[in-house]
Amino acid sequence: MPLLKEFDQKDLVAVGRDLHRFASELYPICRSITGSGIRSTLSRIQLQIPLEVSEVPTGTPVFDWTVPKEWNIRDAYIKSANGERLVDFRKCNLHILNYSTPVHATMSLSELMPHLFTILEKPEWIPYRTSYYKENWGFCLSHNQLLALADGEYEVCIDSTLEDGHLSYGEYYLPGRTSDEVLISCHACHPSLANVNLSGLSVATFLAQCLAGRDLRYSYRFLFVPGTIGAITWLARNQKVASLIRHGLVLTCVGDEGPFHYKKSRRSDAEIDRAAAHVLAHQSESSKILEFEPYGYDERQYCSPGFNLPVGCLMRSVWGTFPEYHTSADNLEFIRPQHLAESLRVCVAIVDVLENNRRYRNLYPHCEPQLGRRGLYSATGGSAIDADINARLWVLNFSDGEHSLLDIAERSGISFETLFEAADLLSDKGLLSTQDGGGSAPGRAAWQRDKVNCT
Amino acid sequence: MPLLKEFDQKDLVAVGRDLHRFASELYPICRSITGSGIRSTLSRIQLQIPLEVSEVPTGTPVFDWTVPKEWNIRDAYIKSANGERLVDFRKCNLHILNYSTPVHATMSLSELMPHLFTILEKPEWIPYRTSYYKENWGFCLSHNQLLALADGEYEVCIDSTLEDGHLSYGEYYLPGRTSDEVLISCHACHPSLANVNLSGLSVATFLAQCLAGRDLRYSYRFLFVPGTIGAITWLARNQKVASLIRHGLVLTCVGDEGPFHYKKSRRSDAEIDRAAAHVLAHQSESSKILEFEPYGYDERQYCSPGFNLPVGCLMRSVWGTFPEYHTSADNLEFIRPQHLAESLRVCVAIVDVLENNRRYRNLYPHCEPQLGRRGLYSATGGSAIDADINARLWVLNFSDGEHSLLDIAERSGISFETLFEAADLLSDKGLLSTQDGGGSAPGRAAWQRDKVNCT
Amino acid sequence: MPLLKEFDQKDLVAVGRDLHRFASELYPICRSITGSGIRSTLSRIQLQIPLEVSEVPTGTPVFDWTVPKEWNIRDAYIKSANGERLVDFRKCNLHILNYSTPVHATMSLSELMPHLFTILEKPEWIPYRTSYYKENWGFCLSHNQLLALADGEYEVCIDSTLEDGHLSYGEYYLPGRTSDEVLISCHACHPSLANVNLSGLSVATFLAQCLAGRDLRYSYRFLFVPGTIGAITWLARNQKVASLIRHGLVLTCVGDEGPFHYKKSRRSDAEIDRAAAHVLAHQSESSKILEFEPYGYDERQYCSPGFNLPVGCLMRSVWGTFPEYHTSADNLEFIRPQHLAESLRVCVAIVDVLENNRRYRNLYPHCEPQLGRRGLYSATGGSAIDADINARLWVLNFSDGEHSLLDIAERSGISFETLFEAADLLSDKGLLSTQDGGGSAPGRAAWQRDKVNCT
Repeated sequence: MPLLKEFDQKDLVAVGRDLHRFASELYPICRSITGSGIRSTLSRIQLQIPLEVSEVPTGTPVFDWTVPKEWNIRDAYIKSANGERLVDFRKCNLHILNYSTPVHATMSLSELMPHLFTILEKPEWIPYRTSYYKENWGFCLSHNQLLALADGEYEVCIDSTLEDGHLSYGEYYLPGRTSDEVLISCHACHPSLANVNLSGLSVATFLAQCLAGRDLRYSYRFLFVPGTIGAITWLARNQKVASLIRHGLVLTCVGDEGPFHYKKSRRSDAEIDRAAAHVLAHQSESSKILEFEPYGYDERQYCSPGFNLPVGCLMRSVWGTFPEYHTSADNLEFIRPQHLAESLRVCVAIVDVLENNRRYRNLYPHCEPQLGRRGLYSATGGSAIDADINARLWVLNFSDGEHSLLDIAERSGISFETLFEAADLLSDKGLLSTQDGGGSAPGRAAWQRDKVNCT
Repeated sequence: MPLLKEFDQKDLVAVGRDLHRFASELYPICRSITGSGIRSTLSRIQLQIPLEVSEVPTGTPVFDWTVPKEWNIRDAYIKSANGERLVDFRKCNLHILNYSTPVHATMSLSELMPHLFTILEKPEWIPYRTSYYKENWGFCLSHNQLLALADGEYEVCIDSTLEDGHLSYGEYYLPGRTSDEVLISCHACHPSLANVNLSGLSVATFLAQCLAGRDLRYSYRFLFVPGTIGAITWLARNQKVASLIRHGLVLTCVGDEGPFHYKKSRRSDAEIDRAAAHVLAHQSESSKILEFEPYGYDERQYCSPGFNLPVGCLMRSVWGTFPEYHTSADNLEFIRPQHLAESLRVCVAIVDVLENNRRYRNLYPHCEPQLGRRGLYSATGGSAIDADINARLWVLNFSDGEHSLLDIAERSGISFETLFEAADLLSDKGLLSTQDGGGSAPGRAAWQRDKVNCT
Repeated sequence: MPLLKEFDQKDLVAVGRDLHRFASELYPICRSITGSGIRSTLSRIQLQIPLEVSEVPTGTPVFDWTVPKEWNIRDAYIKSANGERLVDFRKCNLHILNYSTPVHATMSLSELMPHLFTILEKPEWIPYRTSYYKENWGFCLSHNQLLALADGEYEVCIDSTLEDGHLSYGEYYLPGRTSDEVLISCHACHPSLANVNLSGLSVATFLAQCLAGRDLRYSYRFLFVPGTIGAITWLARNQKVASLIRHGLVLTCVGDEGPFHYKKSRRSDAEIDRAAAHVLAHQSESSKILEFEPYGYDERQYCSPGFNLPVGCLMRSVWGTFPEYHTSADNLEFIRPQHLAESLRVCVAIVDVLENNRRYRNLYPHCEPQLGRRGLYSATGGSAIDADINARLWVLNFSDGEHSLLDIAERSGISFETLFEAADLLSDKGLLSTQDGGGSAPGRAAWQRDKVNCT
């Protein structure tokens, strides 16, 4: 597990601080599914990784959908009769119903009311609401703000444009030894919402940095797309590429203090499902594996029946289940450096399982090989063997060409990491050969040789 | 779910009252496996549904069995020396050991004793006992009655005949669009026992009335047969018909207040097993699914290895597990209008699942189709979707030609009814096509068209 | 189940006494993986059963291993300056690090210390330690003995030899009607350790006596081998024989009071796994089935991937989990006559399942055959059937040529013994035929006849 081992040599506190700082820089931007908000977000990510940005014109058909008009906003407010900005977009970009059409009018409170959104249960928080596919305008405000609005006339202004333009998304492709791909996807369309959006953007960006420049078995594709329409647009334009995806993860809500959750792909027993379940089980007892359901983030599109890609979704708290979700309380305080860093570590661990999961063949399958004379067994008998020796016995016994390391990890309850070290050592000692043309850590000479003969 | 929907528009109280009244009319008849009791029972059912009655002569070989002699009884009593009818068939037809041969003699109590049956634990109840296949005579009485019998001579009379005649059974065939059959079977051979026999007879009769005149996918066959020998006789004479049975239910003990139980067919994963399990799970948390075992009611014969038909058994309390079972306490008080009506509703719901379970094909399988522009999605984003939209996403995602609605119901936990409505709506909107040549509710034009092309 | 039935007619107390007496006779011998200790152990077993002893020369290659030098020991001690034998091999043969090379020297305590082994947690017990594959010498002693050793000079003597010689093992082959084999294997290499070694030796020896002279379906092979190297040696010399092994049991730790444990074979669903699980489930609620893991006793070798034999391991307490394990406290008090006898009974019961497990065919598969007229059913109907009749119904219903008696036992929860009796009776009555050319108890005339026609 070279990736995880190397990651664990880093200062986790510093990693967390960097992740949080990156999220903080992205926080103030008013993103939407199109427009300058997502464009400047992608530009900021480009300072970290060489993202390729695509611009798809309004009106482009993408499966059953059409790329929408581009939305941009400069200002918005509700002013009282005496000119005070009671609701002010400049103070919080959540105040606007995202994708609001322009309006500038004076109207009574009762005319204004159908355009106001609040959360009764959390009277101090501003909700996040959108109206992407039905033209509308509106304001989101705290319920306390609403209660303070007296009868009377209000000046209402939304200085936005909804015009032909482009949908923007970013893509970073890291070539590996094979063209088989691992997809890491996150949406980049929410305004100032930290956990639901910026945590995923940050972890994905830093994961890309961790993997860049390595000798990797798989090629890796990082997507930063507007939710739903972005994934659909990418899939419509990349059907051949999609067929190369062997494993995939959607990242969202990976910055809060909740335990990890992994939502399985539609296939439910894909290798990514098993790898994630294994890593989370060894990460903490409170982590949970969720069955697939169609509703969710962009795994909705990747797991649509026409694609049925092996793409799951990694979260800490599950979106929609915590009160801060889609409110102004999902802010930079709600996500924490430590939690972001742990999430990045889990991603690295999952990638390491994918990179190193392979089938070996025990070259001495009849009875146990004599480990003792190779220095792989305890010299004094009669007392219990230690965990490392036990891992060796597991790897030898089940390396019959049928069981992968992950299979053995699941059956034995031993961590993939420990089994990988055992397999590595046994390979070095000439007791195992590799079965698949999988990747290997630099310097694994025995494998390199074998690889030539593998299909 | 047109059948269930229509059923739910009825007055359940009135339905229950009708069911109980029907059971009450049948209650006094002294039924047995042959003879005038079952014959008059079938006649009474014919007033509700056009039952075809078969008469099979004594001596007819039916597989390993032979149709027995016909039994009829006019009177029976045990008289004290002073002429008092201490045990009187006219008061309760359970007093006779069912199928007793005739006897008229005076004998001492000790001679009489081997012919008397009581229940020690329930000294006020009369047991139900039979001796169909070994000629014998006897009386069933309450244990208190037995204790009151003093030493002395008793006049014992059973005015019965056991002679060559016929075995009678009733059959009602409701043709559907296909010759594939659903079997509804109940025994009609118990004397005054309400739950174990009349509840099933009533619910089956009223279910037949509910289905009559509908445009049905399946053909329905209702059997009213004497237990064991009747089912064996029917199967022996209808082996070709039996091969058309796709789903089947035996009904018994469906009138008491117990929670629902469904005993699975020998196959254990037949569609009827899954349909019943689904309906009961959504009916109440206390309902239970029982594994198949060979002992039971006529599913014993339908599930014999030579037939292995997909026939389960629907009950409320499980026969043999409640103290009233096979005693005089299984009377008209023990069954209740409300419980009978609920049982009928469960049957209708199961039939509706069978009628409407099919595989659809999502015509827009690549990514989600845009539900919003079809009015099938919430216009404002950011808050949770409702259950109906969620059902649509489930149906779309799994309508890959492999998953039936029942498969989706099992995987999602959503009720079949809700999924069916979603599928119906999505079909209307042109997003789904049907896969199987299954039935459809009247007016489902889209399906009717598709059906032509289906195999 | 003729074997178990016959066993149950014995006096279990007497059986237990004999088993324990046999273990007691073997107890004082200083066994090791080679040498006179194991040789005299095999000689003692030969007084019970006609064991064939093999002697394999030192240096013989056996798969990845080589038969080691032969070890013999006459005496060993640590003497104080005043000539007192402080640690005395004659008092307990555990005092020697098993396979110690010879030494005779005077040395200081600090020089001696690296050669001393104790158990800190159990200061009164002597540990059992070995050094088979790395030449070394040492003493095992109680921690209290160690603490009593003052600084000073000690005379250290191990009068052993480690020279070219032989590895000895014993084998008893009981031919049955087929060449398919059941393997019963136990190690015979531990010195005075009662549960971990002598319990298995005793139970295996007495099981062989129980089976000798019977008309058996399978051939039985009993192996008494030194652990690890003995099993490897036998497998290396008997690869063709190994391919005949259909079921196998390793016996160890079968004399203590713990509940039964069965560790499954690597295949995990072999017939031996299911037979053992069935017998243990009906033996006691506290018995447990353990998943396979590579570490253990000689099932390690039988279940190596090149062989993958269906061999499990029967224990009471699991080796390594009780404090007495591999210490002087695993003595003749720790094993009890009753527990040894129960273990033998479990072995007989498992063998009986293997011997009698077969598929039958119901000759009357359409509906139930009429059991009543064959005296196999209750004459009076209306009350519950008894367990014997229920077993008959299960056997009839599932004797479709696909389900074995063990399948039916697992599905019904009824004991194999009860089902076997039902099948036996139904066969006698001409209702069943046997499917497999399986064995049968003497006198099962119907089967004997059928057997001719079976493949």
